[in-house]
Amino acid sequence: MSDPYATLVESFTKLYRYQHLASIVGWDQAAMMPSKGNEARSAAMAELAVLMHDTLTAAHVGAAIHAAKDTDDAEQQASVREMERQWRAAALLPGKLVEAKSLAGTRCEHAWRTQRRANDWAGFLVNWQPVVECARQEATLLAEATGLSKYDALVDRYEPGMTSARIEPIFDDLKAWLPGLIQEVVAKQQAEAVIAPVGPFPIERQRALGQEIMAILGFDFEGGRLDVSTHPFCGGVAEDVRITTRYREDDFVQALMGIVHETGHARYEQRLPRAWVHLPLGVARSMGIHESQSLAFEMQLGRSAPFLALIAPLVQKHLGDQPAFAVANLVKLYTRVEPGLIRVDADELTYPMHVILRFEIERALIEGQIEPADVPALWDEKMAAYLGRDTRGDFTNGCLQDIHWTDGSFGYFPSYTLGAMYAAQWFAAIRAQHPDLDAQIAGGNLAPIFTWLDANIWSQASRWETPALIERATGAPLTASHFQKHLRARYLET
Amino acid sequence: MSDPYATLVESFTKLYRYQHLASIVGWDQAAMMPSKGNEARSAAMAELAVLMHDTLTAAHVGAAIHAAKDTDDAEQQASVREMERQWRAAALLPGKLVEAKSLAGTRCEHAWRTQRRANDWAGFLVNWQPVVECARQEATLLAEATGLSKYDALVDRYEPGMTSARIEPIFDDLKAWLPGLIQEVVAKQQAEAVIAPVGPFPIERQRALGQEIMAILGFDFEGGRLDVSTHPFCGGVAEDVRITTRYREDDFVQALMGIVHETGHARYEQRLPRAWVHLPLGVARSMGIHESQSLAFEMQLGRSAPFLALIAPLVQKHLGDQPAFAVANLVKLYTRVEPGLIRVDADELTYPMHVILRFEIERALIEGQIEPADVPALWDEKMAAYLGRDTRGDFTNGCLQDIHWTDGSFGYFPSYTLGAMYAAQWFAAIRAQHPDLDAQIAGGNLAPIFTWLDANIWSQASRWETPALIERATGAPLTASHFQKHLRARYLET
Repeated sequence: MSDPYATLVESFTKLYRYQHLASIVGWDQAAMMPSKGNEARSAAMAELAVLMHDTLTAAHVGAAIHAAKDTDDAEQQASVREMERQWRAAALLPGKLVEAKSLAGTRCEHAWRTQRRANDWAGFLVNWQPVVECARQEATLLAEATGLSKYDALVDRYEPGMTSARIEPIFDDLKAWLPGLIQEVVAKQQAEAVIAPVGPFPIERQRALGQEIMAILGFDFEGGRLDVSTHPFCGGVAEDVRITTRYREDDFVQALMGIVHETGHARYEQRLPRAWVHLPLGVARSMGIHESQSLAFEMQLGRSAPFLALIAPLVQKHLGDQPAFAVANLVKLYTRVEPGLIRVDADELTYPMHVILRFEIERALIEGQIEPADVPALWDEKMAAYLGRDTRGDFTNGCLQDIHWTDGSFGYFPSYTLGAMYAAQWFAAIRAQHPDLDAQIAGGNLAPIFTWLDANIWSQASRWETPALIERATGAPLTASHFQKHLRARYLET
Repeated sequence: MSDPYATLVESFTKLYRYQHLASIVGWDQAAMMPSKGNEARSAAMAELAVLMHDTLTAAHVGAAIHAAKDTDDAEQQASVREMERQWRAAALLPGKLVEAKSLAGTRCEHAWRTQRRANDWAGFLVNWQPVVECARQEATLLAEATGLSKYDALVDRYEPGMTSARIEPIFDDLKAWLPGLIQEVVAKQQAEAVIAPVGPFPIERQRALGQEIMAILGFDFEGGRLDVSTHPFCGGVAEDVRITTRYREDDFVQALMGIVHETGHARYEQRLPRAWVHLPLGVARSMGIHESQSLAFEMQLGRSAPFLALIAPLVQKHLGDQPAFAVANLVKLYTRVEPGLIRVDADELTYPMHVILRFEIERALIEGQIEPADVPALWDEKMAAYLGRDTRGDFTNGCLQDIHWTDGSFGYFPSYTLGAMYAAQWFAAIRAQHPDLDAQIAGGNLAPIFTWLDANIWSQASRWETPALIERATGAPLTASHFQKHLRARYLET
């Protein structure tokens, strides 16, 4: 072991190959596997997870990370930093805690599927308390090792370098103006007539339309596929990106924009630098940055009037012509605002309030300021304040709606809204360089967008921690002002 | 390690899970993966192969096998016997030989793809000599460990318990009557008119037809799938069997019978006993026994007049009615005989002569009785004698046509024809129990076939070596007489 960094590269290359197997069989499980394959698949994936954990936490890896930090090579420093992040998440947690967390999470999530439908908060609470307890222990251990607060130590797993001290003022800013804006827009839209599309829309035609739009968005079909799964996702590996959607014969609106969303994730993966593809340095920066790509594609570009003008003829070509497919009507369909109870069904404008509500609750929970039993009352209070909706007694459409908390993925929620704000900040930077961007989009020239994202985000992979990446890309730290400007322009000024 | 057998079960369960990953990503590579995914996939699969080899050859495994043999439990004895077979194939070969074999095979196969098209025997010979050299070394090592002859030691990898001493008299028997039978049938068929089906046959309809026939054949769609690949195969795992076919719009005949063939493989896998699924004891007995299932489905059942009568209405339902779809004409289409140059295109009657030719040549090659340079002359001589065809100077359609020898898979070829003869012997046994079998088939009752195969083959997995399996199933050792009787009945007596 003369060169500790070379040793690390060897171990992480092995992990990269194991991860390839995990990603492909994971995609297959969601998109291809028949039901009777599940038990054997789960056992094989669990065996692989053990192998990956053992490979990552082998005795020599920690020592080599310590030794390899002693270098003047900035790229190697960054590479070792990202190796250490993966190593830390695996090596700092005692096996007993990992096992307890996995067991508690699996049990809680499994029962939740029934309990949510049954509106059974009391039943859920019994299984959830151990999940929260494990997450708190994990947070404490990670906090001790990183010097972060407990909650921030969990956030750091998804959004490296991002802390509550950065997030909170930005979310507070949002809270100051977004609820009022929502009310204004809802009032404005009440006067507008929207023509509903008339189906059915054969799935084969929706798929052909989706694939044509993926091609316009630069998806490389020699390095990826589009398939179907119950929950749409972007999976596979950088060299072979697998995105999925779900079709309904009576509605193409959701599936189509879902494809645009996943294509944003996919292009990030497809353009990650191949020289680093086998190293932690070469993976996507974070969940929030990943979401900023899907939301740049879906929200900034996809639901914009010029883009809808660009694809309206394709909608007509594949699905037949009808009044609902007029550009102005497509714009209305894709920018309808309605404060609802369910996050995953929320529109661009109300979505952040769902996330802020969860951020505030889960942070207090992990920091020990509240207990699991306190969650429903807090949920009701914030839902009334932020979105004017009453959720009292309705756990199904309240605090039991998300899967994230059931298996202990605390710290993940902020990524969604950080992603939306990053995306607005990227597009502000692109528009500063290209004042005629909307005309370019309407004319079918999306190169200014792809070129900027490629240079500033895709090619950078995990070279910088998130705050540094933002400043290098846009010359400024994250601010909510671009997001506000974008929302006002789209929802009030047109 | 108090209980050596328990230790072995643990190691082989781990291997079974790794094999699951290998099978699924292997299927994906052939049926789903876009081109740019290949390099990363190959690296991941190679890493997994190393892992599986290391797991199988870990120091404690050999010792545990030795210790676990000391048992009165017959099932455990059989289980350890099959573990040892896998272990021996991996552990007896020095790493250097494995590497040399892999390198030589990869290089030879890669160049062969071009050389075959270019009719370049001289170029091929240069790459092939090291492949043969490695195979001879492997055969020598395996022969020393097993007491078998060199060639038999290679055959044993594919057909446990089967030896040249058993195969040769049976193939000699075939050689005595099959060339004459072929001539008789060709002469008889020259007088017959066959109506060619008129396409196009849309692929979606061919798929629907194929799936309906798979259902009739008992394929469990909750435990498997039908997809498309360049070279049809049966892959996946016992719990989740993936079969493929390839469609042509202008011809449904091949694709349809290909689906019947692969469904035979699939049902064997789907019905392997679940109690042993994680052990070598629980896998399919051999390549020849596997082929006996696909050929039982394709040749014994699929191309029979009663089965074609059963599915003719389905062909008409999915592809529309036309004169070619009359039962009598379908029978002619599916029993046409023509001595050709290419094994994979051969009909039921001429196929065995292609195999016998290869068996005789590869055995002499491995036993050291001939050298690689001698192969073309021998090929020409045997092709003329067995099928009356002249291949002199035509390497493309002669000794360069198969992939098997390019990567050193010597000993595999006999499995094809052994499979055809096993299948005839199974059906003779089934007919002895069910004299009205043809009427049952035509009436849509295939249960007598499935029940017999399930009891005698599928449920037995690797419990017995091949010769014992045959005797237990049919009360007699393998004989060519059932195959002869079947061919005469089908091709001369109807």
